[in-house]
Amino acid sequence: MLNFGFVNQKNFSLLTDLYELTMAQIYFDKGINDVAVFEFFVRDTENRNYFLNAGLEQVLYYISNIRFEKEEIEYLRTTGKFSDEFLKYLKDFKFTGNLYAMEEGEIFFPYEPVVVVEAPLIQAQILETFIINTMQISILIATKALRCYSVAKDKLLVEFGLRRAHGTDAGMKAARNSFIGGFAGTSNVLAGKEFNIPIFGTMAHSFIMAHNSEKEAFLNFAFKYKENTIFLVDTYDTIQGVKNAVEVAKYLNLKTFKGIRLDSGDIITLSKEARKILDENGYKDATIFVSGSMNEYKIKEFLDNNAPIDGFGVGTELVVSSDLPYLDCAYKLVEYAKKPKIKLSPQKITLPAKKQVYRIIKEGIIQKDIITLFDEKLEEANPLLKPFIINGELVEKNYPSLNQIKEKSLNNFKTLPEELKDIYKKYEFLPEISKSLKDIMEKLKKEVS
Amino acid sequence: MLNFGFVNQKNFSLLTDLYELTMAQIYFDKGINDVAVFEFFVRDTENRNYFLNAGLEQVLYYISNIRFEKEEIEYLRTTGKFSDEFLKYLKDFKFTGNLYAMEEGEIFFPYEPVVVVEAPLIQAQILETFIINTMQISILIATKALRCYSVAKDKLLVEFGLRRAHGTDAGMKAARNSFIGGFAGTSNVLAGKEFNIPIFGTMAHSFIMAHNSEKEAFLNFAFKYKENTIFLVDTYDTIQGVKNAVEVAKYLNLKTFKGIRLDSGDIITLSKEARKILDENGYKDATIFVSGSMNEYKIKEFLDNNAPIDGFGVGTELVVSSDLPYLDCAYKLVEYAKKPKIKLSPQKITLPAKKQVYRIIKEGIIQKDIITLFDEKLEEANPLLKPFIINGELVEKNYPSLNQIKEKSLNNFKTLPEELKDIYKKYEFLPEISKSLKDIMEKLKKEVS
Repeated sequence: MLNFGFVNQKNFSLLTDLYELTMAQIYFDKGINDVAVFEFFVRDTENRNYFLNAGLEQVLYYISNIRFEKEEIEYLRTTGKFSDEFLKYLKDFKFTGNLYAMEEGEIFFPYEPVVVVEAPLIQAQILETFIINTMQISILIATKALRCYSVAKDKLLVEFGLRRAHGTDAGMKAARNSFIGGFAGTSNVLAGKEFNIPIFGTMAHSFIMAHNSEKEAFLNFAFKYKENTIFLVDTYDTIQGVKNAVEVAKYLNLKTFKGIRLDSGDIITLSKEARKILDENGYKDATIFVSGSMNEYKIKEFLDNNAPIDGFGVGTELVVSSDLPYLDCAYKLVEYAKKPKIKLSPQKITLPAKKQVYRIIKEGIIQKDIITLFDEKLEEANPLLKPFIINGELVEKNYPSLNQIKEKSLNNFKTLPEELKDIYKKYEFLPEISKSLKDIMEKLKKEVS
Repeated sequence: MLNFGFVNQKNFSLLTDLYELTMAQIYFDKGINDVAVFEFFVRDTENRNYFLNAGLEQVLYYISNIRFEKEEIEYLRTTGKFSDEFLKYLKDFKFTGNLYAMEEGEIFFPYEPVVVVEAPLIQAQILETFIINTMQISILIATKALRCYSVAKDKLLVEFGLRRAHGTDAGMKAARNSFIGGFAGTSNVLAGKEFNIPIFGTMAHSFIMAHNSEKEAFLNFAFKYKENTIFLVDTYDTIQGVKNAVEVAKYLNLKTFKGIRLDSGDIITLSKEARKILDENGYKDATIFVSGSMNEYKIKEFLDNNAPIDGFGVGTELVVSSDLPYLDCAYKLVEYAKKPKIKLSPQKITLPAKKQVYRIIKEGIIQKDIITLFDEKLEEANPLLKPFIINGELVEKNYPSLNQIKEKSLNNFKTLPEELKDIYKKYEFLPEISKSLKDIMEKLKKEVS
């Protein structure tokens, strides 16, 4: 029998680290189950000046739907690590706490709480692994996508990375979160269906090679897809490929066609030559689409060199976030039974207490963020953490569409101070800490040491 | 309404790039559907001397079960890109071809075909994206795991990376394929259930912080888990943490306990001091387990410095394969209608024709691999590509267990030439090309140019 190992709504309660459940067993035994506050945040990193929040919808879905089903409970029983009473508790498990978070499409900075979970300790603890698993990859991709958008300006960006994503779910999250980050769509058909986002495609080298000639391949494709055709021109000789595309378009009497795709070679030179050939033959509306190891640096380089490129297919380096394949992020206990908590492990100090983040915007530009105690009020500033789940219930039944989230992302992008948009240079933009929060930190450090 | 975007057996037919389906539409229209041969292979890379094959079971599962269900067909219809006749063809789609592959747990080298699909062109084409999506991440993780195993020797290795894996499926594949690569198990409970592999866990810093003191936290945990307890000792002061663990174990009259976990600080010094404290207090069997940004380089450094470490929890860097987050891999058309095919795009030349790989082993050590035409026979050499699907049917109903695959991996690891096991230095070990294959390549290059 073959085994795939699908993750689904029925079994995702077990997609967690064992210690979440063994710790929960102890909390259950000892009645240690007062209200705890955990915060998900990201530490500073060398090659990102900002992050784009994404992935919250999947976190809310998980928290709203997590149940321990019979088969999963029976598996836990076989491990011999859990008491019957605790397994019965899991059978009835349901999240009853609160979740505050920044909206998807919000820009955020290091050390700011992005998701805040406030619930009886056992509940808040059990969610840890899944929340990090969801948020990290979503933020990585949304942020990388927004960096591409920041240099591509009005050019078309399409996510092409499904094959190089880390498995099936990563492929879905790549499509969803690059869309949020400013992409027009994806090549991933299932993402198109499930997330209702535009899908794009051209043709592969194998398509050319399966025909007797490039010209024949172009003819067959354009005969069916007409003006919607994008010809892949680099299988044998790129410039000849462009000429073949033009010849086929003329033969079929196409007034225009979608364009050509360059996937290798000296893109700046080739795109200029291709543009000339297309224009000279009356195909001024045919676009030039570029793919192959694309990233924000190449997009910028090509456009800075006036390469007449209309769109980019960005794959591998986007979907694995190749220059930053993981975030230094955490989900930390900051308060238990109303008492603020601090961790002092070397290089891993956390900000204690349930917190809020305020943003001060002047003339449309972010001036600074201030991390405060949750109940502090700041005049003339907007709180970024909003309630999404209160007492286990979703505050809003309707979640924003991905189009709405994307609009928010791109509007928020405009509020970034100009130097932070630099894709090469690191500018540290850290939130301020309010005086009340600082006082608590100092007090706790003294108590612990 | 919240949307997760799960991938499952019903919808995974659409987890593909749009162009696979639009090209298929043309092939269908034009009757271009002779037998094609596609090969999945990996190009050379700077920081790997060998690769460990993994992921085949999921590929076989996909190919055996891919169907286009009604809802998926209806979605395709809404795109306006497909004819009714073609959609009817998809409705009845079933793989009827052959698949040859190296077994999971086989060691392989750059440019060697690892999976060979031989089927009517439309079928073979449609599988492309999913095959790469599955194989790449599985190989990345299995290979990185085997590198850890190669330096950890007899130490316990546990996969701890679920939270930093790129989504849910990546978390499952991390657990499965690191097990194949020599790990003893995972912290991922669902992977334990679905793949029947051992699960491991200790306790988190939040567990300590939720108690009034570290000692109280240790006491509560050890009271329940007794000899199975691993104390996390670095929340406040590591050495004091070790002393607290010992004190609690004595208080509970534990003859021994599983051990302590170090997650930060100067591991070499701390592990030596900790070992001394444990030994002096009669806990010689208590082990020292280390975690926190582990990778093969750190494991080697610690052990080379005689750090008395018994096991490692390897997370983030393993599960995202941080020093090689993607493979330069491809699934290329090498033969169509019995004619070998070649692609000449710059830097992306492919080996044409349906091929076999032979391995010559002497005195238990790999001497060389030779890529030949599929039907060539080589004396005294073992063919690595074996039939897994013939005429759409699985050759073997029983797939090897993960334990069997791991055993194969570790036996194959012993056949590696010693210099290839170096984790720092690149040694190129490329397969030879047989004369018959070379002749065909030269002939094709002349024809195309």
